[in-house]
Amino acid sequence: MIKRINHIAIVVANLDDAIRTYRDGIGLAVGHRMVMPEQEVEIAFLPAGESVIELIQPITETSGVAKYLASRGEGLHHICLEVDDVQETMEEMAARSLRLLSEKPIQAAEGYGVFLHPKAAHGVLIEFLEPFAST
Amino acid sequence: MIKRINHIAIVVANLDDAIRTYRDGIGLAVGHRMVMPEQEVEIAFLPAGESVIELIQPITETSGVAKYLASRGEGLHHICLEVDDVQETMEEMAARSLRLLSEKPIQAAEGYGVFLHPKAAHGVLIEFLEPFAST
Repeated sequence: MIKRINHIAIVVANLDDAIRTYRDGIGLAVGHRMVMPEQEVEIAFLPAGESVIELIQPITETSGVAKYLASRGEGLHHICLEVDDVQETMEEMAARSLRLLSEKPIQAAEGYGVFLHPKAAHGVLIEFLEPFAST
Repeated sequence: MIKRINHIAIVVANLDDAIRTYRDGIGLAVGHRMVMPEQEVEIAFLPAGESVIELIQPITETSGVAKYLASRGEGLHHICLEVDDVQETMEEMAARSLRLLSEKPIQAAEGYGVFLHPKAAHGVLIEFLEPFAST
């Protein structure tokens, strides 16, 4: 059911600074950058094998990510597991009484996703993602 | 230089409970389990594509992981990036003035690893790992 780790998301205060560190320091390649107005964030995509490391900077002070940054500082935010069918995954989670953060999938940068509540997963915020069809 | 995400490590209070959640709830397969006496932890390995999700339970109260659990609770602990040559990576990090947590690689469950200080990587604890030769 779970195909791979689609991405790992890291919240940062300044995307340019973080890209410098992760590219010039740590040695990852930097793919594209994207502003996601609905999520109030800008994201840089750094491929690592079959997965991507996403550096996420809030672009407002009101988003969930901005509040996370303000209260917890920079660091690991969530991991995303890729699935074939997010609707089916949601039904499975409901049947197993695992609490989700939304009642419907949300359109993310890479597909349709839904988040499991961290309390349902031993303190880890986990996203299930069905990628956009690549046809 | 960085080949893939080797693993993501999650600190948990009780490995049996966490395995139940991640296997029966979230739907990951569980590979093997291993006690690492030198690190004072027990680890369960849950493959996800080319990466592994590691659930880590401290088995003493003195280890770094035990202290992390006591102060921060369960959750994401570190991400591990696979490299060809950990010694070369250490030299590169030193040349770039990125602070490492040890002067020599440490034998981990899957190979030889070294950790970058979280302050050097925007709040993320990053391990570089050279896997054991598979010959």
